[in-house]
Parts: sequence; structure tokens; C-alpha cells
Amino acid sequence: MSASPRIAVMGAAGRMGRTLVAAAEQQADARLAAGIVAEGSSLVGADLGELAGLGKLGVVATTSLEKVADEFDVLIDFTNPATTLANLAFCAAHDKRIVIGTTGLDDAQLAELDGFRDRVAMVFAPNMSVGVNLTLNLLKTAAAALGDEGYDIEVIEAHHRHKVDAPSGTALKMGDVVAESLGRTLKEHGVFAREGQCGPRSEKEIGFATVRAGDIVGEHTVMFATEGERIEITHKASSRMTFARGAVRAARWVAEREAGRYDMQDVLGLN
Amino acid sequence: MSASPRIAVMGAAGRMGRTLVAAAEQQADARLAAGIVAEGSSLVGADLGELAGLGKLGVVATTSLEKVADEFDVLIDFTNPATTLANLAFCAAHDKRIVIGTTGLDDAQLAELDGFRDRVAMVFAPNMSVGVNLTLNLLKTAAAALGDEGYDIEVIEAHHRHKVDAPSGTALKMGDVVAESLGRTLKEHGVFAREGQCGPRSEKEIGFATVRAGDIVGEHTVMFATEGERIEITHKASSRMTFARGAVRAARWVAEREAGRYDMQDVLGLN
Amino acid sequence: MSASPRIAVMGAAGRMGRTLVAAAEQQADARLAAGIVAEGSSLVGADLGELAGLGKLGVVATTSLEKVADEFDVLIDFTNPATTLANLAFCAAHDKRIVIGTTGLDDAQLAELDGFRDRVAMVFAPNMSVGVNLTLNLLKTAAAALGDEGYDIEVIEAHHRHKVDAPSGTALKMGDVVAESLGRTLKEHGVFAREGQCGPRSEKEIGFATVRAGDIVGEHTVMFATEGERIEITHKASSRMTFARGAVRAARWVAEREAGRYDMQDVLGLN
Amino acid sequence: MSASPRIAVMGAAGRMGRTLVAAAEQQADARLAAGIVAEGSSLVGADLGELAGLGKLGVVATTSLEKVADEFDVLIDFTNPATTLANLAFCAAHDKRIVIGTTGLDDAQLAELDGFRDRVAMVFAPNMSVGVNLTLNLLKTAAAALGDEGYDIEVIEAHHRHKVDAPSGTALKMGDVVAESLGRTLKEHGVFAREGQCGPRSEKEIGFATVRAGDIVGEHTVMFATEGERIEITHKASSRMTFARGAVRAARWVAEREAGRYDMQDVLGLN
Repeated sequence: MSASPRIAVMGAAGRMGRTLVAAAEQQADARLAAGIVAEGSSLVGADLGELAGLGKLGVVATTSLEKVADEFDVLIDFTNPATTLANLAFCAAHDKRIVIGTTGLDDAQLAELDGFRDRVAMVFAPNMSVGVNLTLNLLKTAAAALGDEGYDIEVIEAHHRHKVDAPSGTALKMGDVVAESLGRTLKEHGVFAREGQCGPRSEKEIGFATVRAGDIVGEHTVMFATEGERIEITHKASSRMTFARGAVRAARWVAEREAGRYDMQDVLGLN
Repeated sequence: MSASPRIAVMGAAGRMGRTLVAAAEQQADARLAAGIVAEGSSLVGADLGELAGLGKLGVVATTSLEKVADEFDVLIDFTNPATTLANLAFCAAHDKRIVIGTTGLDDAQLAELDGFRDRVAMVFAPNMSVGVNLTLNLLKTAAAALGDEGYDIEVIEAHHRHKVDAPSGTALKMGDVVAESLGRTLKEHGVFAREGQCGPRSEKEIGFATVRAGDIVGEHTVMFATEGERIEITHKASSRMTFARGAVRAARWVAEREAGRYDMQDVLGLN
Repeated sequence: MSASPRIAVMGAAGRMGRTLVAAAEQQADARLAAGIVAEGSSLVGADLGELAGLGKLGVVATTSLEKVADEFDVLIDFTNPATTLANLAFCAAHDKRIVIGTTGLDDAQLAELDGFRDRVAMVFAPNMSVGVNLTLNLLKTAAAALGDEGYDIEVIEAHHRHKVDAPSGTALKMGDVVAESLGRTLKEHGVFAREGQCGPRSEKEIGFATVRAGDIVGEHTVMFATEGERIEITHKASSRMTFARGAVRAARWVAEREAGRYDMQDVLGLN
Repeated sequence: MSASPRIAVMGAAGRMGRTLVAAAEQQADARLAAGIVAEGSSLVGADLGELAGLGKLGVVATTSLEKVADEFDVLIDFTNPATTLANLAFCAAHDKRIVIGTTGLDDAQLAELDGFRDRVAMVFAPNMSVGVNLTLNLLKTAAAALGDEGYDIEVIEAHHRHKVDAPSGTALKMGDVVAESLGRTLKEHGVFAREGQCGPRSEKEIGFATVRAGDIVGEHTVMFATEGERIEITHKASSRMTFARGAVRAARWVAEREAGRYDMQDVLGLN
């Protein structure tokens, strides 16, 4: 397969879809080849570049994968479980690769997805951000060097006003990585709220602080603090582009792979 | 009275006392004149400058106010309620001013302190930091300009591992100032913990996030965030020096005042 | 005029135009009524809401103000000097208000714009961010309270990799406001680079530090620091939405005004 | 040798000395055994704990190593080159270990120090902060994962008003580590000032931004930013305690070592 895979974007008129179009255009080693939009949209036939605010690209929005089956190598899909599973079947039948950022699959859907691992080369990751995945790796190193030398560990995260859960899944994942590296568990050592006369901090607790405000896309800091110093490892997502760039990097990577189910640690070579 | 008042420091060998000595030495318009330490300390007779790590100053630690009654104009007292009330009586009898940073007075002690207001010029403030007092003023302006235009308000604070209450008194004070400026109350609109499936943020809530780690002296940020922007007003205390400098500024100011009970807003001219 | 002015957006298919469409839709006291796009665009006739990623709004892109002359009250124009001056003439002839965020006008163009002040109610501001304009006001208060008491002042700003000038115009404006409040000037006291053996900081200098990286929309912090504490006043723009929201707030405000040339300090009531 | 080495502190009445006393007291695996102060100080015979603001410890200040030669295992020395070299000779003669944080040695003094490597187990490091040394390690990992994928790299540092050079030695060291990991050099790619019309950022430059204000002990951030995200690795020193804790950790470590010259990477096991 060529070093510059041809990419199709599912849901190309949605917010994530437009961002994927822009990310595919930016990276030298990938080419935007197709974009699928819903039947009946006023945007069918519109230029994908103009939709994404990039100027004309010469690739227009179409309404099904079948219509562009010969034009792409890797599909990027951030839609919904039902659509994604249908697309996996299409990829299996037509020898396409797929990068899946869809979330919310239930256990049955996960099992169905996993059933394609012998027939499709897929990257499936709940968070495709390169930075988040690197951060998890740095946290492991830092926790191992500091954790038992009197450093207190706190996770601070901020998200937009619409987020319904706290702390964020990514904050919990960061806390898990640190806890595991130190032989602790969030179940035992996680502290998710402090209010009133709660006494001094215990030595082994891992604290979480949550901010909800405005349009914050997602900011996470893990702090290691002791008397005299702090080390802070921070990730700030500023737009969907962080996920889109990770997805295109995954598409470039999976274009060269055999059938199998991969994640972002595989893509980044951190496993 | 001279423009350069002579200052006595109560508890001059303690951590706060040494910092007060250093602050008095730094400010051009004040002079360190005396320092009181406990009877029986190995430090009686030691040079206050050497104790504070500043080199010799030629003022030595002594054991009672009586011994230096003719040598100072303003006493600075960050000790305990009983000592402070005894010192207030001394100031009333000897026509001295006093700056009081002591905390933890109960209602009876507060009434006793207040009873001196006609006989002693005193500054009494729970937090003498110039920056904290200015910040409260900025928050009032910001809340009035932004609060009803879709800006979410969050208070984030961080303190050292030994702090026993959460959020800090200063964080609550900041939240109060903002709430009052918007016709809200922390009782109704304060949110002190978010955990699990707590749903999207409500429009009028004022959120608090608390970090406890290492040796953080005290950091407070109030964030106003909406789609497209954030304004953050932050105060960071890096040492007791923030309180010591405020106390010496208060001593310079109160040296020229008639009997009365004043606070830091008076000293800074923000009332 | 109604409390809910009808808004037309110039350049509605561009990035700023789409953001203006979204901002107009969000604010309860304004209604999106028209959007102008270039002749020959593939997007003529597209629904403005779908273009902005909001779903159908029932207002479609058209190609000239004339075609929608009866449908709007206030035009928002973030385009280029020639287009903006032509639109001002249109507004004068048809009794429309205008909010102008266009930059880059030369002296002759500024004079021409100013010539309309007796016939058109216009808000003209180089930076429409509510937060930036509030920040300038807070800086004035902070500088007056702290500047002569041994607080060092530094301005730190960060922008995306494409920005060609340093420090940013907004950083210079912030420095100017602080300097003026203290009887200093950036010409004499501004320090724009520190490199090598530059010696200790002088007391009255106002330092600038510049970061250029990634897609940072614009972050500005003014720090006041002394021994023991720091106060930091920070503005972070996260998207064009900060300017768009300010523009729509200006449109709501100017809808009720007589002919005249106004700025954002007028809109926010900070003058 | 016992798991809990007995520590002597050179210059125990100075600021760094008092901090070393406090650090030795805090760490369970070390014991404060002696402290040396200058002949003629008013503090000879004072309790080291009271000097450090910790309360009585039962170890008093003395005036020479000879007087306490049987009472300690490891000397910690943050003084001046001449004193340190004399102390090295003492350690060689009396079979003591030494941790050296002294800076400013010239080439001849460095050679003399190095001459003791076969007779004394010494840790010699210009920056003993555990956090700084860990941070350098994390930067290497991050640069390798991100550097060639369109991430811009900036180093931001802040120090107190008295610092005479810019950027700090630690900032330059961080930049060096990143540059080396990417096959770049600060000589070619370092950008130390941006002022005026300097054009867009080049892809491979490593930018530095410098803040000088107040009493900031030392803050360093390395930012990796691209479209959609930032990773920031930050170290904040809040007091000399960061160096003191590192020194005591080094003392515990070197107590078990053969003669040789070691650095903090050895102590932390990061080499």
C-alpha cells in the first residue's frame, strides 16, 4: 500500500467530521479522498474543504460508502455504535482499514466489534489524543521515581459546562496509572471531594479536583508536590483537532498493518 | 509622630516573628526596635537579625514589653488570643498602637478586644495580605461586569498537606464577594463537590475545587468562563512574608491614626 | 426599536462569519436575520445554521445587503477595509446600525470611517472581547494599589505559531494601561528581551515575555509580584467566539443608540 | 554502615544550612548529628533545631569538623570552593562521605575536587533538586515522541528579581536535553528574544521566555504545542528545601557507596 493512504471521513458535515477533514489535509502523509453525509442534508455535493472552512479541495460530500468504495483505503469513524458496526462489516467485505473513535458501545456491541479483529485492521481507542497517551506514559515514570519519597499526588481537571460526569474518564485513567505504579488503588486511596473539617491530607491519598466552566475542551494536570517543589504534568486539549490529528496518525499507521485490533499505545510505539 | 514608626515584634523567635523582623527591616518607612521571646528560650539575647538570617542588626531578643516600653511605637502581634488581649491592655496603658494578626478568638474574646477600640488605635484583620485584599476588590468589579452575561464562576484553591479545612476561609470569602455582587448566596449556589453522574453545570452555581499537596502556602484563582474566553484572577502567597509585609504596611498606617478598630481595607484605602 | 434586534452577518461562510452566526443564535436578545457570502460560492442558498454546524435555522446565505435590506437592523462586519466602507455607506443610506471588527484600516480609511459618525450609529473596536476590555479596567485598579509598593510587573503572552509580531498588540495595550496608571511609559520602562548577563531587574521596569506555539488563540497574564505574594490577572481566548460574543453584545447595545462612533468600553459601561 | 547515616551540616546557621537541618530532621532514614557555624557567631552553642525554627533538637552549633569528627558519617556542604576543598581533605583523612552543592568552582578547583574521587565517596551536583532531575528525564521521552510530528517547543522560566542571567541555567539545560533528543542544537535553533515584526515561528525553533519578578524561587515549563493540544511539563521550586531534600537523599544514598564521584542521576537511578 502507498505511504500516503486515501482517507474517507464518516459524518463529514458534523463538527468532528469537519475537523477530521482539516486534519487529513494538514498531514503530508495522508490524503482526503471521500466524505459521507446523511441522506437529505442540504450539504450533499458541497465541497468538503469549503465545509471545513479551508477553501475548495475538489472532494464533495456523498451519501454512502458504496459510492466511494474504490476511492479510499482507511475509513475514520467517530459516529455511533450502530453505524460503526455496519461500517466494520463494509470494511471486512471490501478490504478496508478503519480507525474508530466512536464511544458508548455496550458489552454486546463491543463483542460484535471484537469479532472483526481477524478480518479487519482496526484502531479502536476511546481517546485518540497523542498528548493524552504520551502523558499516561510520563506519569508512570514520574510516579515510580517520586511516589514513595513523600510526594503528594493530586489530579486537577477542567471541562466545559455541559459535561455530566466528574471526574472525567481521562482524569480517572491518569489516577489509575499513578496508583497502579505505586501499588495503590483509586478505590482505596482516591479522594474525590473535600469539604468542611476534613483533617490533614493522608500520605497515600490521590486527590481529585474538578472544574466545570465555559467551553473548556479538556485540561488535566497531575501534580506531585513535596516540601520545596512541585512537578506538574499537564495536558490541554484546545479543540477536537487533538483527537482528529491522533485519528489521522492512526490511519497512516494502520494502513500498513495486518488484520487486528490496535489502540493508541500501539500507534505511538509506547507499548 | 515620626514618619518612620518604631516597631516591636511579639514572638520574635517564632517563624512568623522572624518574618516580621525581616519585613520591618525591608520597608524604608519603618524601623525594627524590639522583639519579645518566651522566658527561658535559648535565644534570649540573640541578635534579631541573626535569628532572621539577615546578619547582625543590633537589636536583641528580650522577654517582656515592659523592658522595652520606651523603645517602640507600634506592636505587631501574631500570637494567641490570651497573649494578644494582655498586650492590648499594655498598649492602652502606655499609649501604643497595635497590629493584630492573631486568629481563633472566640466571641467573648472578640468582645473584649472590641472594648479597646476607644482607647487603642488597632488594625485587626484575619488576613493581612495586601494582594488578597486587593483581589477581593477586583472580584467585585469583575462579577458585576460579567456575572449575568453567561459566565460560569469557579473558585480553585490549593494549600499544603497539613490544612484541615476545605475550602479555605479565603476561598469562601472570595466566593462570598462574588455571590453578593450578583445577588446570590453560597448557601444556595455554592457547589463544593462534584462526583459521579452529577449532570451539567447549572447557570448560577459557584463551584469550588480544592487541592491539598506539599508545602503550598496558599493559591486562589477565581475563574469567569464562557464560550470563547476566560478571565482568571489569581493570588499566590509564597511565604509568610505576604502577611508580614501587610502587617508592617498596617503598622506604618496605624502609627498616624486616632484610637479605633481598623481593617486592611482601611489600610489600603479600598473602603 | 425592538429589544431583540435583527442581525445580518457579513461574510457568513468564513470562519469568523460562522462564529458570528453561532453567537447571534446563542444570545436571547438577538436574532439572526441574514448572512452575506461571496458571489459564486458553492454555499449560496445553504442554511446558515447548517454551515455553522448548528442544524437548520431557516436563514439562507445570500449575496448582497440589498437583497435583505428590509430584514435586518444591525450589520456585523469583520471583513476588510474596502468592504466595510462600502457597507457603512449602505447603512447610512438605509438607516442601519453597524458593528465593525475589521482591522488594518490606513489613515485615509479611518478618516473616511469617522466621516460617518454623524449619520450612522457604529461600534468600532480593534478587539471586541468583553474579557480583554474588562481586564484593562482591572489592571488600572491593581496598578494604582500596588505599583509603588515594591511589586514587580510582568506581562506574559502566548499566541499561535503563525503570529508575526511580538509582543501582541493586546499585551502592549495592557502594559500601556499599567504604565500610564503609574506615571511610567513603555518607551522608557518596557523590557522586551532578556538574554545573557543582563543583571538584576530594575524596580520600575515592565517586562514582557512572549510564547509562540501551536494553535494558542491568545493568552495574556499580567503579574504583580513582590516578596511573599503574586497577583495575576489572566485573559484566555479559546476561540473566535470571544470576539463574536462581544460583537453581538455590541449589536444589542448599539441597536438603541443615536448616530455616533462608540467603542467596547462604551458598550460595557466602563467609560 | 547503618541504614540511617549521621549527618553533619556545614554552615548550619546560614539560610541553606538551616534548611538542610530541617530536611535532615524530616527524613526518617537520616539523623542530624552536627552543625558547624563560623567562629565568633552569636549563635555558637545555640540549638540547631531552635535555629531552624523546629524547637529543641539537642544538637548544638559548633565551630569545626574536628570537634565532631566521631559523631557523623556524611557531611553536606553548600558553602564556597575554598571551604569545600578543605572539607574534602578532612573527609579523605577521616573516612567520611560528602555531598557537595557548592557552585562557582573554577577549572583548577574542579580538578582538585576530582582528585579526591579515588579516596572519597562524593555526590557533586550543581542542582540537587529531585524534581529538576526527573523533569530532564521526562523531557527526553516527550521530545522523542512528539518532536517530529509538528509540535512546537517553548521553554518558559520565571525567577526572582535579583537573578542576573537569562535564561536560567536550568532552562538552558532543559532546552539542551530536548534539542539533543531531536538532533537539533540551541546554538542553531534556540530563539531567546522575539520583538517587533519577527515573522511566523519556524518549525524547528526552540523558544525561551523569561520572567523576572518578586521572590519566585524558580519555575520552569517546557511546552509542546500543536493544533488541538498542548503538553506542559513544569517544575516549581518553592524553597531551598527542594535542594536540601535532594541533598539529604544523596547523603542517604552515598553513605552506602565506595569512593567515587557521583551526580543526582546516579542517586535517582536514572542513569
